[in-house]
Amino acid sequence: MPDILISEVGPRDGLQSIAPILPTTVKCAWIDAEVAAGVREIEVGSFVPASLLPQLADTAAVVAHARSHPGLTVAVLVPNARGAAAAIAAGAHKLTLPLSASETHSLRNLRRSHAQVLDEVRAVAALVAAQPAATRPHFEGSVSTAFGCTIEGAVAEAKVVELAEALMVAGVDEVGLSDTSGYANPAQVRSLVRAVRTAIGDDRLTGLHLHNTRGLGLANVVAGLEVGITTFDASLGGLGGCPFAPGASGNIVTEDLVFMLEAMGLSTGIDLDRLLRVRDVLRAALPGEPLYGFVPDAGLPLGFRAAA
Amino acid sequence: MPDILISEVGPRDGLQSIAPILPTTVKCAWIDAEVAAGVREIEVGSFVPASLLPQLADTAAVVAHARSHPGLTVAVLVPNARGAAAAIAAGAHKLTLPLSASETHSLRNLRRSHAQVLDEVRAVAALVAAQPAATRPHFEGSVSTAFGCTIEGAVAEAKVVELAEALMVAGVDEVGLSDTSGYANPAQVRSLVRAVRTAIGDDRLTGLHLHNTRGLGLANVVAGLEVGITTFDASLGGLGGCPFAPGASGNIVTEDLVFMLEAMGLSTGIDLDRLLRVRDVLRAALPGEPLYGFVPDAGLPLGFRAAA
Repeated sequence: MPDILISEVGPRDGLQSIAPILPTTVKCAWIDAEVAAGVREIEVGSFVPASLLPQLADTAAVVAHARSHPGLTVAVLVPNARGAAAAIAAGAHKLTLPLSASETHSLRNLRRSHAQVLDEVRAVAALVAAQPAATRPHFEGSVSTAFGCTIEGAVAEAKVVELAEALMVAGVDEVGLSDTSGYANPAQVRSLVRAVRTAIGDDRLTGLHLHNTRGLGLANVVAGLEVGITTFDASLGGLGGCPFAPGASGNIVTEDLVFMLEAMGLSTGIDLDRLLRVRDVLRAALPGEPLYGFVPDAGLPLGFRAAA
Repeated sequence: MPDILISEVGPRDGLQSIAPILPTTVKCAWIDAEVAAGVREIEVGSFVPASLLPQLADTAAVVAHARSHPGLTVAVLVPNARGAAAAIAAGAHKLTLPLSASETHSLRNLRRSHAQVLDEVRAVAALVAAQPAATRPHFEGSVSTAFGCTIEGAVAEAKVVELAEALMVAGVDEVGLSDTSGYANPAQVRSLVRAVRTAIGDDRLTGLHLHNTRGLGLANVVAGLEVGITTFDASLGGLGGCPFAPGASGNIVTEDLVFMLEAMGLSTGIDLDRLLRVRDVLRAALPGEPLYGFVPDAGLPLGFRAAA
């Protein structure tokens, strides 16, 4: 098994942030190319009303296709029980439900208070529990705006810990932390991860969703590695961000993240040369969208060797 | 005293990498604006023949002006004893002489073997030692291409340790490590800093010159902080790189570095708002040059507080 799991979120987080609607066939080609490069988990879409995010209206079809790849974890975002039911019907392996630490952000984003979101979490947990063990999806609660909010500003560590505990009580399998606004810094990452892990258990917080809005994405990954995080979300070409947090764009670039980890001797299972070529799919399909990344421009160091 | 010393290298490393020649008055205005923002060390130029780097031909005049700022450490690069004599005559407070870990790079860059560069180091050390104690400059030997070389590829850790020891024997006060080619990764930074410190003493390696060529600049800073590094070079707007290492451009952006450190609670003594406004000087004087940085685009987080 590779040391670190990279969860590619471009087909969901990237595509929901841009105006063009990618045809289902292109989404599937993108997923196929990432799987061929060694990516083992992809968030392929979101089960939200098509009226809200027409870019992701074909998520059920994309899930169906992605499931054809043996060993791939097909992840989706679900805002509520209705979305979760659709995700389960489609056969998604992993459901992520966001709960914004900033209640103001939650009300504006999901139009729900913390209590209302936790009600949905309980309903989703019941749906998940009702599935046969062999096909039961993994259910993650993701605390978004965990490192700060563009509307509320600083978010108290105690609030994030409280919500992580509430998510566990409400029935999630695992909690993730998301730097929706690109506010996180390495000291904060270390501190918050430690605090949440102390509260809910090390094995219940293994993943971070970090942004590169202020250029600290990879620095925050280094901090996450130090405190035991083993799963990192990233987006090919840095596509996307959060349309509900103004100015907060910029996922971590998958290519740069894989380069850093492999250079550090941490295996990802991903072939960098093949991953870099996946950009061609996006460049052809989204000619107007900027693709980010330093390694794609600079190339790999002379004599570079990936982790064993 | 602030926790971390930021050494601004833009007026040397930045300007030597671009074609336009900045007038002396503009260089001085740039330096003045950085000092007003709280910057306490600036590498203002290089004492190399004007035929090689006409951009830095006015270094003596710039040193003279920079010396008018009380408390500012006026640093310069010197390739050899002749340059050092000129730097001492001009009144520079700190001399840095680069020694490339890659001998191929050294021969192509300085046209000297390791042994020849070490001869120059001894000659400079003698010059420095001959100065009155009150005005004696600090003398640093900087191991460049310490993390890899665009010509030789990987550089052995043992080679860097050997050269750091040789620099100390030859009479430098301190050794720095420079990622000239943008090849460093956080695990390597930790390992190499520890190895060199074990060999020459913790107080003889306190500074790193890191590049952001592959987007890992700030991640490498985090690794450096972990192993006790307290001085980091950076360039306003990320101006510059290394003209002798093809493709290896991109200093760490001073603005992003200061933001990260202050957000982590590490004081730099620098006022971020004032530092961000220094970009106006460069934008006006170098309209054709791209200025980099994430924080300048994204702005500071809502409610952001600098370190106490």
